[in-house]
Amino acid sequence: MNRVLFNAQDFVTSDRVRLCDYRADHIRRILRAAPGDCLKVGLINDRCGSGEVLEINQSSVTLRVTLDQAPPPKRPVTLLLALPRPKMARRIVHAATELGVKKIILLNSYRVEKSFWQSPLVDDTHLFSAMVEGLAQCGDTILPTLQRARLFKPFVEDELPTLLSQRTGLVAHPYASSAFTKPSGETVLAIGPEGGFIPYEVEKLLEAGMQGFTLGPRILKVETAVPAILGQFC
Amino acid sequence: MNRVLFNAQDFVTSDRVRLCDYRADHIRRILRAAPGDCLKVGLINDRCGSGEVLEINQSSVTLRVTLDQAPPPKRPVTLLLALPRPKMARRIVHAATELGVKKIILLNSYRVEKSFWQSPLVDDTHLFSAMVEGLAQCGDTILPTLQRARLFKPFVEDELPTLLSQRTGLVAHPYASSAFTKPSGETVLAIGPEGGFIPYEVEKLLEAGMQGFTLGPRILKVETAVPAILGQFC
Repeated sequence: MNRVLFNAQDFVTSDRVRLCDYRADHIRRILRAAPGDCLKVGLINDRCGSGEVLEINQSSVTLRVTLDQAPPPKRPVTLLLALPRPKMARRIVHAATELGVKKIILLNSYRVEKSFWQSPLVDDTHLFSAMVEGLAQCGDTILPTLQRARLFKPFVEDELPTLLSQRTGLVAHPYASSAFTKPSGETVLAIGPEGGFIPYEVEKLLEAGMQGFTLGPRILKVETAVPAILGQFC
Repeated sequence: MNRVLFNAQDFVTSDRVRLCDYRADHIRRILRAAPGDCLKVGLINDRCGSGEVLEINQSSVTLRVTLDQAPPPKRPVTLLLALPRPKMARRIVHAATELGVKKIILLNSYRVEKSFWQSPLVDDTHLFSAMVEGLAQCGDTILPTLQRARLFKPFVEDELPTLLSQRTGLVAHPYASSAFTKPSGETVLAIGPEGGFIPYEVEKLLEAGMQGFTLGPRILKVETAVPAILGQFC
């Protein structure tokens, strides 16, 4: 936790925040903060700043906060991600948040098992908690927006072309002939499930205006491919 | 498992391999292979090729193998990695192997807890199994070499300069002023522990001939930073 994050409801006065949960525990036990210490803080979906520790006790930590800094800039990327196996979804969403994607769209695909969509591990509560952890790790405050596209064809035919009207669309698949080159502006980056998008899906994504690219002869796990590609959008 | 890997001792004749363990299980249950099918195979630390399924039964799978292909080229990178928390080490070594690093040197650092070195999760057995899984995922056969540098100062003073005599050395730390730019040749890439190398360590690495670089204002977890940086060595 490189930045302590809070919500509007954590304020007890206009500039004081009281934390009573895992964040208070982290400040006490990991940061070993004492009254007078200054911590990096941030208001979720708002500004960053610093928080002076006013009081620490067994049940809470009170900070006087000054929110005077902009969060770090986002990478200009919308991640269009075939819904991963639920136990991997948290890790991938965490990494994508750390790396600063603006938006994550979870997409259905032939190789996404139907049961994945029902898993509590991919509900809003779990994925938002992964995002908040990712923000606290990297020092950001702005949550990526999260969308679910549970029907592949209607999304790709009706919504994706609009999304691509002002963005470059790239789809990673091992048999494309072009290597990855970083586009200059906003990008929609599509990453398939383990085993990849099926040929019909790749065709539909290309028809919608995306371009295929390959990462080379190595077939990467989704959780490796996501940071390996996002890292190139510095 | 995108390539079924085996060792010299799995051969029953000069071109036949018999598998009886998790690989046979994978071929039966996940690949659902039948006699006559052709699988991607490879001999560890040797060539890649194809394997025709000759026989499948409950206890084993027999393949006739032809090893006629070179493995994919490695990335020109030696990863000098502060020993990660043991439960993360496997995942990071797996990802680095998938991404094709040539060598991994596990390095001590002030912020590496002493107990990490004693964990069975970072012994050769565990890390080689992570590497073999990584190879099977990405379709490679050549294991990265693995070295342990349990004493920071002697390694950095006595061994690192030799390593750097024919390689560019880069150390990731958040407060460096230069952004990452991919060197043209062989590279030693140093990545610190969670919390980073301490200033004394950064200084010693720079004295040994490494150059600092920053990944920007975001502080990444080690398991995110490793693929995010390695991805740029395409």
